[in-house]
Amino acid sequence: MKSYKEMSVEELTQQRAELTKLYEEYKTMDLSLDMTRGKPSPEQLDLSNHMYDVLSSTDFKSCKNEDVRNYGVPAGIEDVRKVFAEILGTDKDNLFMGNSSSLNQMFDAIMRAMVFGEVDSPKPWSQVEGRKWLCPVPGYDRHFRVTEKLGFELIAVPITDEGPDMDIVEKLVSDEKVLGIWCVPCYSNPDGIVYSEETCRRLASMKTGAKDFRIFWDNAYVVHHLAEDESQWGSVPDILSLCAEAGNPNRVYEFASSSKITFAGGGISCFAANKENMDYSKKILGVQAICTNKVNQLAHARFLPDKEAVLGQMRKHAAILRPKFAAVSEILENELGFEKDIWHWTDPKGGYFINFYCLPGTATNIVAMCKEAGVSLTPAGASYPYGKDPDDASIRLSPSYPPVEDLRTATKILTVCAKITAIDKLLEE
Amino acid sequence: MKSYKEMSVEELTQQRAELTKLYEEYKTMDLSLDMTRGKPSPEQLDLSNHMYDVLSSTDFKSCKNEDVRNYGVPAGIEDVRKVFAEILGTDKDNLFMGNSSSLNQMFDAIMRAMVFGEVDSPKPWSQVEGRKWLCPVPGYDRHFRVTEKLGFELIAVPITDEGPDMDIVEKLVSDEKVLGIWCVPCYSNPDGIVYSEETCRRLASMKTGAKDFRIFWDNAYVVHHLAEDESQWGSVPDILSLCAEAGNPNRVYEFASSSKITFAGGGISCFAANKENMDYSKKILGVQAICTNKVNQLAHARFLPDKEAVLGQMRKHAAILRPKFAAVSEILENELGFEKDIWHWTDPKGGYFINFYCLPGTATNIVAMCKEAGVSLTPAGASYPYGKDPDDASIRLSPSYPPVEDLRTATKILTVCAKITAIDKLLEE
Repeated sequence: MKSYKEMSVEELTQQRAELTKLYEEYKTMDLSLDMTRGKPSPEQLDLSNHMYDVLSSTDFKSCKNEDVRNYGVPAGIEDVRKVFAEILGTDKDNLFMGNSSSLNQMFDAIMRAMVFGEVDSPKPWSQVEGRKWLCPVPGYDRHFRVTEKLGFELIAVPITDEGPDMDIVEKLVSDEKVLGIWCVPCYSNPDGIVYSEETCRRLASMKTGAKDFRIFWDNAYVVHHLAEDESQWGSVPDILSLCAEAGNPNRVYEFASSSKITFAGGGISCFAANKENMDYSKKILGVQAICTNKVNQLAHARFLPDKEAVLGQMRKHAAILRPKFAAVSEILENELGFEKDIWHWTDPKGGYFINFYCLPGTATNIVAMCKEAGVSLTPAGASYPYGKDPDDASIRLSPSYPPVEDLRTATKILTVCAKITAIDKLLEE
Repeated sequence: MKSYKEMSVEELTQQRAELTKLYEEYKTMDLSLDMTRGKPSPEQLDLSNHMYDVLSSTDFKSCKNEDVRNYGVPAGIEDVRKVFAEILGTDKDNLFMGNSSSLNQMFDAIMRAMVFGEVDSPKPWSQVEGRKWLCPVPGYDRHFRVTEKLGFELIAVPITDEGPDMDIVEKLVSDEKVLGIWCVPCYSNPDGIVYSEETCRRLASMKTGAKDFRIFWDNAYVVHHLAEDESQWGSVPDILSLCAEAGNPNRVYEFASSSKITFAGGGISCFAANKENMDYSKKILGVQAICTNKVNQLAHARFLPDKEAVLGQMRKHAAILRPKFAAVSEILENELGFEKDIWHWTDPKGGYFINFYCLPGTATNIVAMCKEAGVSLTPAGASYPYGKDPDDASIRLSPSYPPVEDLRTATKILTVCAKITAIDKLLEE
């Protein structure tokens, strides 16, 4: 196919007319397709339907003989701390188990810092006027919303194939008002990037202006591999160890959850921290609650008793997800592959997203046009601080939830809208 | 039996010698008995062992056809909001369901006020220098610890048979630094008092200096009746309605949980608020988490689908608890009933505690002596701000957890220690 950039105005106008006809046809189909969020599909959720079966027939006792039905064991039972420790490559004593959402744990961690400060803070963060937070972009909208809500100025940092651009990060953190950074180190949301060891080491060892600077290391997709070939699986080093080795032992909180391993609406979460951060946090956590849901912890530990069992479960997830990611990629390739300097997209080896890059200035229009044709996409810009992508050039696609046929239709419509908006843009110029 | 106050020094000394012999005998028994906390017993927890059985065989769908296994429905499924609304006498739309612990919800609610203020606050509470909180005494130690940790000065308010002494409360709240009050309106912890309607109305309608004053209405024991005779059951009016009627619709947050209905280590909790507080809270809660554990909500709703089912479950709890409370009361009566002007204790119609009042200045010694004989009691003073009972004259007894025989032994030892310390006190004078 001839490149749009080589086409005459007449040819482009002709193309647009054909595409518009197609688009109008889609609009008459009264579709309602949703690729907005990284939700597991019902088939994936079915994988864990029998998780609670173990409970009614057993004694509700943890490996330490604690009755999980009763109060106590605030940090969570060892049965499940062991599993997450193995997954994260850290020690079970570094772990604190929470309820269903790791986002909740991140929010709470910053709330603690807001009100009390960190263990090494000169003052509570709420008293730091002009506080700032680094946001590698594109990134996770809900992360950014937490620090925005808590009054931080969000500083965008470009992300490369190796993670956040460390030359830029190292400069920015010299500002003592910069108190932290969001990181999704393995299969980053939405680009699917796996941080290099070099990036991890530089994050652990960089000099920061704020002595209470914190990395929020959201290892959300640590075992969420898509590739059938295990040699392509991503992995990152244990960040707690790296920070300790670099002489910055208090620098990091790590987070993970079972939301996309078992049930998004009924999982368990955890955070990992070194002893000093953990002891300090526990003094506040012990006032906040007597314990979290240990019955659910036991169900999880019995259902998935070790890392190998978790990886087995994740292989089943991947088998469901792969055809969906493949369908989206295939249509993008077929429809837009002729013009890779206008459109390109990620080919993630794990995680939940394909990130689609379009002609600058067109993403918002594409999303609006798709919406009109019954296809809901994540708002353009969602992956950027304040929801504003300065280039207006990327859209996060979430192939996990809809059936393959819906994905095909939705992606086809997306490509039609991408072409129309591109032509309009080219015709403007 | 002759009153201690009528005995001569010789008689008292003789008594003490006999009691000391008995006490030393107990010490040789190497006991380890625990009446420290209001924990359900294993028999009570067994009542809910089959709660999760419903899940594996069903479709995981809420009454609104939501898949509880997935993300979404941040306020919690209607199935369970309906049950708690019925219990609390309010509307299901006033409810927000949380994870396992209502304490966590109370802590988070004050944290939100600390960082953001309430909807009607002139400024965040963390910026109110010298902020104060009213603590009806005796009360719940974990409540007091929350506001202590968050930098409030704790102001003790005496509690009467009708609830907090409202003449005193009404005076204190004219101080604009007083931002709230802890209330356990039904079967208060530890005295088992049920607030009168008059008290509730005065709380709802009193004039407060702080326009963002809040009542934290912990309805922890709303269905936790002990009395077999239902006419003796306590109940309090719907506080949200009373506040609205009095023209103070934003004044109250109400809390409840299933911790002592199903599993203390795996229940669900909720808070209730009027629309303005709820809308305001949801804006922050929506940043904190995508949803709480809805799988657990569905299990609860199927296991206990309405108030009548909950009351049926509570009757079973009461049947297990009654003999335990009776055993403690009986021994106290037999051993100490001869001297009601020295010792007295509560006869609760619900809740989890018997509060034991002893000769002023002896409670700490009694607890220490019991400890030495292998009986753990709640620290004397725990029911008072900062853990300090100015009279040192009460001990909270928790009969729920230990087997009846252990309770008998523990209470017997308590009475021996109570007598010894009383004699010592009388001999001093």
